Amino acid sequence: MHSEEPEGNQVTPSTGQNLDPHLKRYAARAEGMTASEVRALFAVANRPEVVSLAGGMPNLAALPLDSIAAEVASLIAKEGLVALQYGSAHGLPALREQICDVMSLEGITGHPDDIVVTAGSQMALDLVTRIFIDPGDVVIAEGPSYVGALGTFASYQAQVVHVEMDAAGLVPEALRQALAVAQAQGRRVKFLYTIPNFQNPGGVTLDVIRRAEILEICRQAGVLVVEDNPYGLLGFEGQTYPALRSMDPDNVIYLGSFSKTFASGLRVGWALAPHAVREKLVLAAEAAVLSPPVLSQMIVSRYLSTHDWQGQIKSFQQMYRERRDTLLAGLDQHMPADCTWTKPDGGFFVWMTVPEGIDTKAMQPRAVTARVAYVPGIGFYADGFGSRQMRLSFCFPTLDRIREGVRRLAVVLEQEMELLRTFGPASRRISSGPQTPSPDTA
Amino acid sequence: MHSEEPEGNQVTPSTGQNLDPHLKRYAARAEGMTASEVRALFAVANRPEVVSLAGGMPNLAALPLDSIAAEVASLIAKEGLVALQYGSAHGLPALREQICDVMSLEGITGHPDDIVVTAGSQMALDLVTRIFIDPGDVVIAEGPSYVGALGTFASYQAQVVHVEMDAAGLVPEALRQALAVAQAQGRRVKFLYTIPNFQNPGGVTLDVIRRAEILEICRQAGVLVVEDNPYGLLGFEGQTYPALRSMDPDNVIYLGSFSKTFASGLRVGWALAPHAVREKLVLAAEAAVLSPPVLSQMIVSRYLSTHDWQGQIKSFQQMYRERRDTLLAGLDQHMPADCTWTKPDGGFFVWMTVPEGIDTKAMQPRAVTARVAYVPGIGFYADGFGSRQMRLSFCFPTLDRIREGVRRLAVVLEQEMELLRTFGPASRRISSGPQTPSPDTA
Repeated sequence: MHSEEPEGNQVTPSTGQNLDPHLKRYAARAEGMTASEVRALFAVANRPEVVSLAGGMPNLAALPLDSIAAEVASLIAKEGLVALQYGSAHGLPALREQICDVMSLEGITGHPDDIVVTAGSQMALDLVTRIFIDPGDVVIAEGPSYVGALGTFASYQAQVVHVEMDAAGLVPEALRQALAVAQAQGRRVKFLYTIPNFQNPGGVTLDVIRRAEILEICRQAGVLVVEDNPYGLLGFEGQTYPALRSMDPDNVIYLGSFSKTFASGLRVGWALAPHAVREKLVLAAEAAVLSPPVLSQMIVSRYLSTHDWQGQIKSFQQMYRERRDTLLAGLDQHMPADCTWTKPDGGFFVWMTVPEGIDTKAMQPRAVTARVAYVPGIGFYADGFGSRQMRLSFCFPTLDRIREGVRRLAVVLEQEMELLRTFGPASRRISSGPQTPSPDTA
Repeated sequence: MHSEEPEGNQVTPSTGQNLDPHLKRYAARAEGMTASEVRALFAVANRPEVVSLAGGMPNLAALPLDSIAAEVASLIAKEGLVALQYGSAHGLPALREQICDVMSLEGITGHPDDIVVTAGSQMALDLVTRIFIDPGDVVIAEGPSYVGALGTFASYQAQVVHVEMDAAGLVPEALRQALAVAQAQGRRVKFLYTIPNFQNPGGVTLDVIRRAEILEICRQAGVLVVEDNPYGLLGFEGQTYPALRSMDPDNVIYLGSFSKTFASGLRVGWALAPHAVREKLVLAAEAAVLSPPVLSQMIVSRYLSTHDWQGQIKSFQQMYRERRDTLLAGLDQHMPADCTWTKPDGGFFVWMTVPEGIDTKAMQPRAVTARVAYVPGIGFYADGFGSRQMRLSFCFPTLDRIREGVRRLAVVLEQEMELLRTFGPASRRISSGPQTPSPDTA
């Protein structure tokens, strides 16, 4: 009766909530809290017979569980009175120093004092949004953008304006225009939210030359940059790109995470922020959770000091590269003409556009019936775009499952196109408001 | 350079932040984020030579660390791929079932589906505030109330109205009056926030007969009750009181925690809420942290199923009772006449009022110089009351340290009174707005 499944599919849509006796008591911001497209899908996508190209779960099979178990046991036995006790909202000093070492791989020179450790980088994003966003303030984000970030922005009543990406990431000229439009409308733009490396869900990376240009545009406009970088160390050739934070320390808040390079279930992420902002973040963190989990922080710290964590990241890179190769080869082989997709050189995701007339959300139940799952594109836009798009994850399934999943998806698409040729589009996509192109089609 | 200390004492007061280049970018709610009185004190109070009667840290010395270490090692080795992976925002189903067993000790019949597991109960309070509070909405709270709750309410721009307690807890007639005043002023009261058992910081417990009356008053006024109960199982005679939630399931949101009965550093708490509210809480939790720490949840679940957790709670009760007895005996023996204090029958705290003319915040540096620390009362009120009050914690120090701490505190107080007799009060307390009496003096 109490399933493992997220509740997305059980949540009553807001129009039907008149049975809720507390309806009139909610805050205005609760209006924006609705189940995401990704979430609603997990229940069905997690059935074993379905090949899920939907989830963004890291593949932990390569972790040395036995030696981690031994380290954690020693940690609890010897330092349990610290590990099981309250900590500070700022995070453990030793871990903050180690985080500086991790960030130095992408050119960042940060001070441990300017880091706030959080219960996953989602919490860091929540805190940044909390201290900067008044209802109606504008956040600029790539189109498409991380669904979890859109959820956080909605929960603080931010207005999201998407800016176009192409194969080289965010398009500077499009950013300039979006800022000009917002300014002309008298709207307050608080920050640019960007995932520069192996973007979720776009799978593209921001060109290095463009980085300086984007930073300059934001600085000129008086707009902060929030750089979300969970995948930056997962480049498939071992390559890294200079962090935006390394190029403009005073105007960039950097969000980092151990969820993809070590273990997501520990919930350890961080923000590196200009000093004055960091002070506010610590106060906000204290109000939110008192302190991030102490045992989790000590486990990460111990792992970084006793394991070959850079070697482990290299094996993650290799594992994900094989999966990416397999997915791209399958798409090349099986996808109908008129499908386009991005070619990520790192991270977890490929972004695909299907032929005109096909609605990826409407197609989703038929795909699941054919035992393959993906995430429909509309969940990654706040403006209704994305109905012809989908996100395909290659991070979690085995190579064989990826191959099989692509074959199944191709069959579903072919059937959909056949229906389309016979009967025409079942429903026309409703375009409203600004619409953002897709990074694979620009 | 990167100390273990919380940052409270390093935070620039808001009046001095004009060096912050981001000052004009903050959200309005960031104004309410200021360092608490408790926080500012930790740095000095944690010096080993100072007897701290300030902190509310649980005393974990009695925990069986070796067997916990062994259980956690087995958990990671055998179930590591789940424990280290993302979980749901709702929390682990097995743990939610066990939480129902824990709550049944206080008469609660809850369904596991209506529980949301959070990163400590502070996060549960944050989420409840997030979904219910618009800026300017009123929260009714006991006077004094938990400083961490006041911080959360401030961060969502709630207006806190304190209601008087006496030795039997919240005074129903005072609650009725406060609601009437708020209603007459056209203010929206969203909920009553109450810690009915062994209140923090008051040390008093809400009389059982009064519970039904308080619930009826809130129900009549259309006001929710948020019942925060971290100490409920720590009654010194093994006694428990019926939870408010057990008496009015539809109008009470119950907040629970393993921080005081097991291990605070794991950050595992929960909310039990009416079903429709629970759905909103899960969505809010997802935006806030994606999921609470999975390993922490599995450790708590394993602990509950393999350890004699009720026996462990009994030994916590005994340990804290001895400490309470020692503190009260010391106060009886050493405190000047005209000091009054509460006599808690559970929990961590005694609340004390000192003679007229003494300002506990002004006295604090002299107390720390005399190597004893407490928390000044004003941190526990949102309305400026509490300048003659202080919170004394007996949870953490040894019996000898408690005795010594009380002796030192008595000397400081005597000197302060001597100065007062000689020179008169150094500064007059500024009374502004509604003022709430202290539970030990009512």
